[in-house]
Amino acid sequence: MFTIESLKSEQSAKYLEAIRNKIANKTKPIGALGVLEQVAEQLALIQSVAQGSLVEHIEITQPTAIVFAGDHGIAKHNVSIAPSDVTRQMVLNFLHGGAAINCFCHSNDVALKVVDAGIKLPLTAAEKSQSVDFIEQRLGAGTEDITTQPAMTALQVEQGLGFAHQLVNQLQNRGCNLLMFGEMGIANTSAASAIYMALTGDSVENSVGQGTGITSEQLADKCRLVNQAVERAKQAQGEMTPLDILAQLGGFEIVQIVGAILAAAQAKITILIDGFIVTSAALVAQRLYPQVSDYCIFAHQSNEKAHQSMLSSLDAKPLLNLALRLGEGTGAALAVPLLRCAASFYNDMASFESAGVVV
Amino acid sequence: MFTIESLKSEQSAKYLEAIRNKIANKTKPIGALGVLEQVAEQLALIQSVAQGSLVEHIEITQPTAIVFAGDHGIAKHNVSIAPSDVTRQMVLNFLHGGAAINCFCHSNDVALKVVDAGIKLPLTAAEKSQSVDFIEQRLGAGTEDITTQPAMTALQVEQGLGFAHQLVNQLQNRGCNLLMFGEMGIANTSAASAIYMALTGDSVENSVGQGTGITSEQLADKCRLVNQAVERAKQAQGEMTPLDILAQLGGFEIVQIVGAILAAAQAKITILIDGFIVTSAALVAQRLYPQVSDYCIFAHQSNEKAHQSMLSSLDAKPLLNLALRLGEGTGAALAVPLLRCAASFYNDMASFESAGVVV
Repeated sequence: MFTIESLKSEQSAKYLEAIRNKIANKTKPIGALGVLEQVAEQLALIQSVAQGSLVEHIEITQPTAIVFAGDHGIAKHNVSIAPSDVTRQMVLNFLHGGAAINCFCHSNDVALKVVDAGIKLPLTAAEKSQSVDFIEQRLGAGTEDITTQPAMTALQVEQGLGFAHQLVNQLQNRGCNLLMFGEMGIANTSAASAIYMALTGDSVENSVGQGTGITSEQLADKCRLVNQAVERAKQAQGEMTPLDILAQLGGFEIVQIVGAILAAAQAKITILIDGFIVTSAALVAQRLYPQVSDYCIFAHQSNEKAHQSMLSSLDAKPLLNLALRLGEGTGAALAVPLLRCAASFYNDMASFESAGVVV
Repeated sequence: MFTIESLKSEQSAKYLEAIRNKIANKTKPIGALGVLEQVAEQLALIQSVAQGSLVEHIEITQPTAIVFAGDHGIAKHNVSIAPSDVTRQMVLNFLHGGAAINCFCHSNDVALKVVDAGIKLPLTAAEKSQSVDFIEQRLGAGTEDITTQPAMTALQVEQGLGFAHQLVNQLQNRGCNLLMFGEMGIANTSAASAIYMALTGDSVENSVGQGTGITSEQLADKCRLVNQAVERAKQAQGEMTPLDILAQLGGFEIVQIVGAILAAAQAKITILIDGFIVTSAALVAQRLYPQVSDYCIFAHQSNEKAHQSMLSSLDAKPLLNLALRLGEGTGAALAVPLLRCAASFYNDMASFESAGVVV
């Protein structure tokens, strides 16, 4: 379904050499822009491969955040600070412009789309009419309770990947070349932790955290329940593929984010990865197609316990570490100006020769 | 000369409580925006004290970066990757828009001023005419060689503080309420390390680093020379005040940055502190007036060896860690969008009540 070009080809290596030469001639000590130089390299490489020739100017066009919302059956066990109803309330908050992701997208000039990937109760026609940026591609009315049964069917997984694929293609056709994904789904850190455990074999203690701020009693319950879910899935299915893991333990929003990441990488769109939930989707995508990582820039390390380990298992070094634990794509939206600055120095900074600087 | 209001007064505590209440009612879990919440608190507190009543909206107006340039006598000992001539060449590069700081200021909508605080050879009339944002307030043609004599006189220090004071007042009168400072001066990490050693008593090994990338041989020389400078100053003057340390070991750009920090704090302007050199100036300012810290937001931790210790001695936790080692104010300019995002969520995010979210 997906064909994703690796950026480690011989041709890519040639582009990368030319890109590094260009950066080395900028009027600054070699390497003095640190991580921003790596960001510029990656942006320039992706765009060079996309256009089939070395880019002299990195362009960031129509950067867009897509927030996928979905509900989770496991939420009924009180594993979050809030009940499932809040997922829908926050979707309405997104449509009214009142959430943190709205503020950050507005401040950083990023377009925002909100997708109902499967919240419990769909929006009414009146509610939907409040925003042109709302998209309905529901896989159901929340997932099943993963502690006792699979989150969804293989068909739902397939449908979710397809929905996301289509949406990303539409955005690319409108000129978007930078995508970031966010999520809203009460209890979705439980699903993300379960996915991480199943993919990596890490222990439940290392994998489960306090989400948006549960008590230590709730955390003990959450550990027990996530462990139960993973054990149940293993019993039911034995050796699981990444897609099996999504069906057994995932969320509707997580599945669609996996699909969006794969579709964006296929389309040679740069992907800015947000926090814990989105990183779990990136991990699934990378296990399906390892070359997906070539298109991913990791925005931030969140305060969620297993995020650091999850990032390490992707060999990812995030740009920011601001102790965020909100989701919604907020960390990714915050990192966009760093990408613009990386592009800016690559594009507009003088060379030693042009500036008459002699070191 | 400076009267700086502390933000730890009883009135400030009342503002802070109201600010925290406002943030706690935003539609997100308590504390979920991590460091950005602290940034919003600090911005709102400074602006509330400045206007004498609680601010409902944080405003960031006319954010401005001022790059101070100065030359250093110690440069003749080959302690940098580049000769002193490069200071002047880079000043011209700033005026032509070709340096990293130009790119980042342009990308992040920050105004840029360039100050000749005392480079070796002043710009010609023709060169100066190339930019309206160039300001000449020279304290001399580079400092003396600090390994053998004081960098400058007490009178030059006083003059430098005065120049900076005047400039900051002008910018405030034009509506600027966010300032950041950068520097250009070949060998100025040597001066900053010497200042740090003299202020804190830390060892030379802990205080001196590779600057923009010298060899380990050069580093050994730099350590020896910086140590010699600090020992010479101690012999000459015994117990030194922070102003004595500036005269003995400082740089013309560093003195003016100290003055600008003090003037900005006095004017209740938020100060975004850049890397190693600017942090050394902040440390001097804080030793003169401890309440200066209340107005400082620390932008980033650089790759320079002693920057972490310097930040710790200021009890500062920087926003970014991007392995930069360039100076110019680049780290500060990169952090501006984070301040704008902090303001944006404080100003525009819905409350639980207004959004109808019930947790």
